[in-house]
Amino acid sequence: MRDREIDSAGFRSSDQTQSEIRFEGMSCPVPLQDYPHILMGHGGGGKLSAELIEHIFLPAFGCQSPESLADSTVFCIDDARRLAFSTDSYVVQPLFFPGGSIGDLAVNGTVNDLCMSGARPLHLSAAFILEEGLPITTLQQIALQMGATARRAGVSIIAGDTKVVERGRGDGCYINTAGIGVVPAGVDISPARARPGDVVILSGTIGDHGMAIMSVREGLEFEAQIQSDSAPLNSLVAQMIDAWPDIHVLRDPTRGGLAASLNEIAAASRCGIVIEDERLPVNPSVQSACEILGLDPLLVANEGKLVAIVPEAAVADLMAVMHRHPLGAQAAVIGRVVADHPGIVVAKTSIGASRVITIPIGEQLPRIC
Amino acid sequence: MRDREIDSAGFRSSDQTQSEIRFEGMSCPVPLQDYPHILMGHGGGGKLSAELIEHIFLPAFGCQSPESLADSTVFCIDDARRLAFSTDSYVVQPLFFPGGSIGDLAVNGTVNDLCMSGARPLHLSAAFILEEGLPITTLQQIALQMGATARRAGVSIIAGDTKVVERGRGDGCYINTAGIGVVPAGVDISPARARPGDVVILSGTIGDHGMAIMSVREGLEFEAQIQSDSAPLNSLVAQMIDAWPDIHVLRDPTRGGLAASLNEIAAASRCGIVIEDERLPVNPSVQSACEILGLDPLLVANEGKLVAIVPEAAVADLMAVMHRHPLGAQAAVIGRVVADHPGIVVAKTSIGASRVITIPIGEQLPRIC
Repeated sequence: MRDREIDSAGFRSSDQTQSEIRFEGMSCPVPLQDYPHILMGHGGGGKLSAELIEHIFLPAFGCQSPESLADSTVFCIDDARRLAFSTDSYVVQPLFFPGGSIGDLAVNGTVNDLCMSGARPLHLSAAFILEEGLPITTLQQIALQMGATARRAGVSIIAGDTKVVERGRGDGCYINTAGIGVVPAGVDISPARARPGDVVILSGTIGDHGMAIMSVREGLEFEAQIQSDSAPLNSLVAQMIDAWPDIHVLRDPTRGGLAASLNEIAAASRCGIVIEDERLPVNPSVQSACEILGLDPLLVANEGKLVAIVPEAAVADLMAVMHRHPLGAQAAVIGRVVADHPGIVVAKTSIGASRVITIPIGEQLPRIC
Repeated sequence: MRDREIDSAGFRSSDQTQSEIRFEGMSCPVPLQDYPHILMGHGGGGKLSAELIEHIFLPAFGCQSPESLADSTVFCIDDARRLAFSTDSYVVQPLFFPGGSIGDLAVNGTVNDLCMSGARPLHLSAAFILEEGLPITTLQQIALQMGATARRAGVSIIAGDTKVVERGRGDGCYINTAGIGVVPAGVDISPARARPGDVVILSGTIGDHGMAIMSVREGLEFEAQIQSDSAPLNSLVAQMIDAWPDIHVLRDPTRGGLAASLNEIAAASRCGIVIEDERLPVNPSVQSACEILGLDPLLVANEGKLVAIVPEAAVADLMAVMHRHPLGAQAAVIGRVVADHPGIVVAKTSIGASRVITIPIGEQLPRIC
């Protein structure tokens, strides 16, 4: 790990996303000289992932900005009707874990990506890359959980594909789901819309999904088993939009955790964000597991949580709606958008000190989703 | 291989697709007792793939018919506007081969799937599962070829995802692309629409893609190097639809080759199909390679060809349009849809004999796309 990657406390992250500076007039991509080979961290949703997008994919695909390859992209047909389109591959290990499986994750993850643009998810595709020798009953269990989760989320799986690779060329089962949703008229939700004065709301506890996976992988046992929070957020989001259509930003803090989501929003909106450590809801068993493993819950993946950036005037209405919904019962105001330190996320500690929350470079917990 | 799998000359294939008989009122899937583990053949696009769809995916996902998980699925928004949605994962080895790469295949394959429902492809997603250690320059080459092919096809890649798995858990690079297209008003193209008296048109030579891959894998050398036919068919399809909107069926004969496509059409339409061996265009070097390797060109994958089933009255107009297009220059009438032997595909040999063309059970050439 080189110095220039780990110092500079988030400033580099901010510079990185100003693609109009780095890519003006470029037609030929810049090779990633520092890393001639793919590392596990390139799949971590942090800085290394962002570098792949900016230096390899955007120049090659001819996209204009990093937002073009965001989790969910909105496009128009007929000049008026807006659709959201999203894709994610799932490579989580183990395939089954407390509170979920690769099957329900593959549905929830893509449903949630669509929701984060305000879209009402309609249809999913499901594509499997299976390793020769996978027990058919395992595949069946996964498929049944996908189906049940899709019904819970009110989406249908309408297109599919199956490929098989030789033993030792896969890891049981990888799943890709892509999704299509309809963005309601008048809704305009995007990380760039955060404004100074806006309030940061978190829908519930953080770190549950990542620590559920880690506790199984590491064989850790706690008094209470940690359960993944894997869940489809579309009904919660629909109720929030009904209550206050002008929500500015929604993000589901998956890979890279809440830290990555807040940094993405700060960079896209060119605002600062200040959160208060004391207000962050964290389950006690997740807190214990993080301390044992030396992990920061802010960096741990969630699969059924959202962070919302909303005008101050919306807070009372939205909190009321969220608290009534099972997936928002522990919703809390955790911070505020500020004009100071644009692009930088700061956390106030319980003793009044401040620390900068940077986007992770690579992968704290590999293959978490 | 059991007897009941290899005999019965296609009759079983026909029975299999009558899902309304096998699955009436079923809510619980039937386990695939004969194959307790995933075989390479489950990814081959033949009978074993169909069994996974019918016995595992359809019951689990709650779909009504096998067509629900076809290559490309058409759905409505606003009661009127029809969209096509498609997904495919690409696991081809080697990653680069004469005439193409996994990158252009991933674009062409999904563009072509969309076209086969008559849709005009608009947007693709691109999701990568990379193996740790893949050279960044390899990924860059693949991405550049995806971008160039997308521009050639007139589609944009608007959503993406990257996951990384440990060494030995992947094979360099797997790509999933999903795609969205718009189906023009008045167009109704589906395998079920073949009618007795319709004519079967093939857009060009068969077997080129599969034999290009095999010749590299097996280190075969021929006088002329065999090139993959990987190409986006959307401009050819658009011109065909302009010339004759009431095309009944379009299919791109990929995995399982022309044999699988024709069997799918025969089963869905409950018609018979008769083709003439002598009319099948096959490149001489492909023919030689097939003979050396003991393969039937009818079973070998193509990535830039289509088979069209059209009313007799349309043949002259369509052939004229196809012959003017670079991807249809060698288009030929190869057979006819008949009322006899519903669900069965028959080829007339050059000496006047008939042979039944069955759908392959598994995988003649693994990981061809």
